[in-house]
Amino acid sequence: MQLPAYVQVNDVLLRDGLQLEEKLLTVEEKLELAEGLMLAGVTSLEFGSFVHPKLVPQMANSGELFSRLKDSPADFVALVPNVKGAENASEAGVPRVNVVFSASNTHNLQNIRQTTEESLENVKKIKAICDARGMKLDISIATSFGCPFEGRVPEERIFSIIASIAPLEPHVITLADTTGVANPKQVYDLVNKLQEKFPHVKWNLHFHDTRGMGLANILAGLQAGVTSFDASLGGLGGCPFAPGATGNVSTEDVVHMFHSMGIETGIDLDKLLETSKRLKDIIGHELSSSVLKAGKYDRKYPVPS
Amino acid sequence: MQLPAYVQVNDVLLRDGLQLEEKLLTVEEKLELAEGLMLAGVTSLEFGSFVHPKLVPQMANSGELFSRLKDSPADFVALVPNVKGAENASEAGVPRVNVVFSASNTHNLQNIRQTTEESLENVKKIKAICDARGMKLDISIATSFGCPFEGRVPEERIFSIIASIAPLEPHVITLADTTGVANPKQVYDLVNKLQEKFPHVKWNLHFHDTRGMGLANILAGLQAGVTSFDASLGGLGGCPFAPGATGNVSTEDVVHMFHSMGIETGIDLDKLLETSKRLKDIIGHELSSSVLKAGKYDRKYPVPS
Repeated sequence: MQLPAYVQVNDVLLRDGLQLEEKLLTVEEKLELAEGLMLAGVTSLEFGSFVHPKLVPQMANSGELFSRLKDSPADFVALVPNVKGAENASEAGVPRVNVVFSASNTHNLQNIRQTTEESLENVKKIKAICDARGMKLDISIATSFGCPFEGRVPEERIFSIIASIAPLEPHVITLADTTGVANPKQVYDLVNKLQEKFPHVKWNLHFHDTRGMGLANILAGLQAGVTSFDASLGGLGGCPFAPGATGNVSTEDVVHMFHSMGIETGIDLDKLLETSKRLKDIIGHELSSSVLKAGKYDRKYPVPS
Repeated sequence: MQLPAYVQVNDVLLRDGLQLEEKLLTVEEKLELAEGLMLAGVTSLEFGSFVHPKLVPQMANSGELFSRLKDSPADFVALVPNVKGAENASEAGVPRVNVVFSASNTHNLQNIRQTTEESLENVKKIKAICDARGMKLDISIATSFGCPFEGRVPEERIFSIIASIAPLEPHVITLADTTGVANPKQVYDLVNKLQEKFPHVKWNLHFHDTRGMGLANILAGLQAGVTSFDASLGGLGGCPFAPGATGNVSTEDVVHMFHSMGIETGIDLDKLLETSKRLKDIIGHELSSSVLKAGKYDRKYPVPS
C-alpha cells in the first residue's frame, strides 16, 4: 500500500461544522475553538463564510471573527458563494477565499440560487477580484459524487466543470461529497481520471460520513495520491440546503487514522481531543467523533484482578 | 483499484452482536431475526456459542435455537471456546464450529481462561472431535491487530500461531480485531504477509468499528484479496471480556459499501434494512447502522418548491 509520509488536514469546523447547529456561537466561542485547533497544530482553517446572514445566521460574525484571528500563524480561508461574498471577504481582509458551487444544477439552485453555468461565469469574476486584491482563490465543487435531488453526477460533467475552472489556476480544487454518497471505488476512479486530465491541479477532498464510508473514502483518496483532506472537529457539519446532509468526517478520527498508519499530519492528537471536549461543552451535545469516545488505538486498560 | 466481483458477508448478530446486550432474547426473537437475515439472502450466520451460560447468559439458548434453525438452507456456525463447547455443539448437531482464542495471552486468559499455548493444544483436540463427528472447523484469532491489555500484537506472534493451526486445515481462519484498533495499512500488510506465508489458508476478516475505521479496514482487506467478511446487523456487538469493546461493523453498511462499489453479495439490502428495523424494535434501542438512518447512496429527495 503506497502511502504519503505527510498529509494536510484542513479543519472546517467553524464553517461547514457549525452550519447546521442551532446554537449560534459568539465570536469569543469561535475564537477559543480556533485557538484550540491551532494549539493542536492545525495550520489550515476554514473559519467562516461570507453569505447572506439571513440564509446562514451562524456565519454572520465571520468578518469580526477574522479580525480577531488574522494575526495568528495559520492559513485562514473563507467560503464565498458569489461575487458579493468575495467582495465582502476582501473588505474584511481575508487572504484566501473558497468559491463553492455545485456540480448538480438542482443543488446549486437550492444552495446558492445560481445555475452551474452562472456559477462558472461568476467564478471568473471572483478570480478577477482575487487578482486585483491579492487574495488566493480556492474552488470547491459541491455534490461532486452525487446530489440529493439528481442522484449520481456523471463524471463527464465534473470533467467539463474542471476544464472550465482549471485555467483560472485556483490554489486548490476541492471535490466535495456534500451528502455522503461517495464510495471508495468512485473516489479512486474519479481522482485518477482527473489527475490524468488535469495534471497541474492540486486536489483536496471533502467527505461527509453520512453512510459510514468517510474514512474509507479518504483511504481511497490517499491511494489515488491526494494529500489534502477536509475534516471538521467533532464530526459536525452539513449543508443547510441539502436534505439528508449530516456531519463531516471528524478531524480527530481522520488524524487518528493517519497517525495509526504512520502518516504525519503535524497535529497533536491529544491536544486536538482536548479541544474536541471543549467543543462538546460549547455546542451542548454529544459529538460523533469515535476516537473522542473510544480513545486512541494504543489505549491500554488495566488487567482485572 | 482491483476488486473482486463477489464477496461473502457472514452475519454474526446472533453471536457477537448480542453478547453485550442486556436484554436476553428468546429463541422466538432470535429465530425471527435469523429468518429475516436469510430472507434478505444472508447465507452464513454465526448463530450462537457453546460457552458456560453463567459467563454469557445471552448464549444459553444456542442449542435450542439451532434445533429450530437446522433445516434452513444456510451455513450455521457456532462459536466454541474449548473442548467442552465443541462437544456440546456436536451433541446439538451443529455442522460447523468456530474455535476462538486470542493472540494476546492476557486477553485469552480474561476471555476463555486459557493461555494462548493451552488454546493451541485445545484446538488440536477440537479438530479431533470435528473429524470424529463430521463437523467443519473454523478458527478465529481474537486481538489479531491489538489487545486492550497488551497493546499491539507483534506480527511474528500471529505468524507463529497460524503456523501452528494451519496444519489442522481449518475451513477458514478469521483475523479478528476484537476492540477496533486495526488500521488499513496494518490490515493490508498483515494479510499480504499471511497470504504469502500460508497460501492455502482461506482468510476471513472480522472488524469492530470502535474507532470509525471498520469500513476502511474492510476496503484494505478487499485490496489485499480477502473476499469474506464478518459483520453484525445493526452494528451491535463486542466482547464481554475486553474493556472498551464496541459494536461490529454493521452488516447494512458493509453490504451497502460493497453494492455501491459494484461488488455483489447476494444480499437484498432493502430486505436487510427491514430486518434491521425489526432488530431495533426487538432490542429496544437505536442501532449504529449509518445506512439505516441515512438511506442508500442513491436516495433522492423532492426538490423544495
